[in-house]
Amino acid sequence: MTNHAPFMAEALAQAQKSYDEGGLPIGAVMVENGAVIARGHNRRVQDGDPTAHGEMACLRAAGRRPRYDGVTLYTTLSPCMMCAGTIVQFGIPRVVIGEAENFHGNEAFLRENGVEVIRLDDPGCTDLMARFIREKPTLWDEDIAGNDPAS
Amino acid sequence: MTNHAPFMAEALAQAQKSYDEGGLPIGAVMVENGAVIARGHNRRVQDGDPTAHGEMACLRAAGRRPRYDGVTLYTTLSPCMMCAGTIVQFGIPRVVIGEAENFHGNEAFLRENGVEVIRLDDPGCTDLMARFIREKPTLWDEDIAGNDPAS
Repeated sequence: MTNHAPFMAEALAQAQKSYDEGGLPIGAVMVENGAVIARGHNRRVQDGDPTAHGEMACLRAAGRRPRYDGVTLYTTLSPCMMCAGTIVQFGIPRVVIGEAENFHGNEAFLRENGVEVIRLDDPGCTDLMARFIREKPTLWDEDIAGNDPAS
Repeated sequence: MTNHAPFMAEALAQAQKSYDEGGLPIGAVMVENGAVIARGHNRRVQDGDPTAHGEMACLRAAGRRPRYDGVTLYTTLSPCMMCAGTIVQFGIPRVVIGEAENFHGNEAFLRENGVEVIRLDDPGCTDLMARFIREKPTLWDEDIAGNDPAS
């Protein structure tokens, strides 16, 4: 059985890095054959790119590949509809989510489309995101265009 | 009533530009208040970025904004699940699609989520995409990870 904690810790380190840069603290890592093969964090502020959510930045960092069989995507926050759609389009079979308290995300959509979803309810992920939302509510609202679908 | 043809012609020009660069010939433009405010085309080959579909590249080019009310996104090809999810997450109210013959896309998902969808069945869009798929089927398969959801 996979121990998710070390991989989620790497995703959270990405989130913390983004927070420290003044950006949105959401991070992701891609794992294959028991090893991290790509890392990413939200880059809206850093690059002025609205599509650069943590999961998307991680997929970019992983580069081109024909398929995603055997890949697990770790993300500190439950995926928005952009990121959930991306996971489904590319056939990523498994997603491990840090928390879904600060954003409900689209776990039901992922499951309906055959993705295995594991939510850790990680207090470290929850606390950092909650702190950011308290500090910069307008920036958070912009990142999701005010749209938090009920999971 | 909006004349969609000039805007779709601009999206197709983006697709042609990408084709000429050796990339996937899918283009998009964003229109607001009757004017094109951003352009983009698929950049998988050009940038080695699997998330850079035409619609995503156009959204990046448009930069940061809090909301997308009043925006129309023109795309030469029916949106994949990544791009459809993005349109829904950011609340883009209207999408004009060049064609859905070469890829069925996710029109039903868009409509179910309140997006107005207009499909032009534009022969110029269809012909360029069909030509590309004949010439480079493996690259096309990679771009959608082999996954064409029925619309």
